[in-house]
Amino acid sequence: MKKFPLHKAFTFLEPGPVLLIGTRDKGKNNIMTLSWSMVMDFTPQFAFLTGPWNFSYAALTKTKECVISVPTVEMAQTVVKIGDCCGADTDKFKKFNLTPLAAQNVKAPLIKECLANIECRVTDHIKKHNIFVLEALAAWYEPRHKEKRTIHAVGDGTFITDGHKINLRKFMADKLPPGV
Amino acid sequence: MKKFPLHKAFTFLEPGPVLLIGTRDKGKNNIMTLSWSMVMDFTPQFAFLTGPWNFSYAALTKTKECVISVPTVEMAQTVVKIGDCCGADTDKFKKFNLTPLAAQNVKAPLIKECLANIECRVTDHIKKHNIFVLEALAAWYEPRHKEKRTIHAVGDGTFITDGHKINLRKFMADKLPPGV
Repeated sequence: MKKFPLHKAFTFLEPGPVLLIGTRDKGKNNIMTLSWSMVMDFTPQFAFLTGPWNFSYAALTKTKECVISVPTVEMAQTVVKIGDCCGADTDKFKKFNLTPLAAQNVKAPLIKECLANIECRVTDHIKKHNIFVLEALAAWYEPRHKEKRTIHAVGDGTFITDGHKINLRKFMADKLPPGV
Repeated sequence: MKKFPLHKAFTFLEPGPVLLIGTRDKGKNNIMTLSWSMVMDFTPQFAFLTGPWNFSYAALTKTKECVISVPTVEMAQTVVKIGDCCGADTDKFKKFNLTPLAAQNVKAPLIKECLANIECRVTDHIKKHNIFVLEALAAWYEPRHKEKRTIHAVGDGTFITDGHKINLRKFMADKLPPGV
């Protein structure tokens, strides 16, 4: 994977794709599927929502770090199945033939099969709302990944794949952050 | 517009489309464009991020209500232009030929030209992070709206349109909330 400019990392998350959240606790890697996330301004800061009902919650609150991975269309079934089993009794990397790669700033693993990976540390945990606030530390991108289309959860078991792109830069050039 | 079941209102927002946020203050309707939002669990609860740099911020904090409208592909240019001008000196409904419709629970207007509209009240404002937490009060849907595809902001002035849908319900039936 190639380093990706940190100030542009939000462009992977802003479209709202389903994400995989990698954690590592007690020497074990784990992954959860998540679609309740949002970009926080143009800084490399993100928020997502998860709670004690999720096995990854303990690792997140304890280690205060994770990796946000961006899967693409060909992983759709795997992504759903990752969300439908539990790290308490399943080694998800093994079960789904995924390859953990060492991150640079956190112990949580990158996922080789994903289009992009963002190393993050938890900077705040708004317990009242189960919201985690994250700061991105490094971003990685696989330029050889042929499939670029991500998937978006509808919430009813169906998923929308990315369609075509529209370029409307000329109508909002003054609103874009520098270098994006 | 037809009433849409409130417990399914999150299915409009979970895929992460660009949204229009309608407010009404001092007798004037206003709209802002927003893509920093997320679903909060399967309840009709949402979060979005905006701050004092946005003219709608004052109306949101004062009236504690808004309407979340979901525009589709044919409105893409309008959506961007709405985000590129300011309600302080512009009547955006007039400028962009949009039709305000009376909501049932809030003074903020629905937008007739959108696929769906969700009336919301602000239940919390996490000032430290500029996050607003919203409870949905009623949801509306235009079944005759031919274009169903929404748009997703990349953040660099380009937008991804909805592509085809994948049905993976059978792999996550046990995770879906009742009636969805």
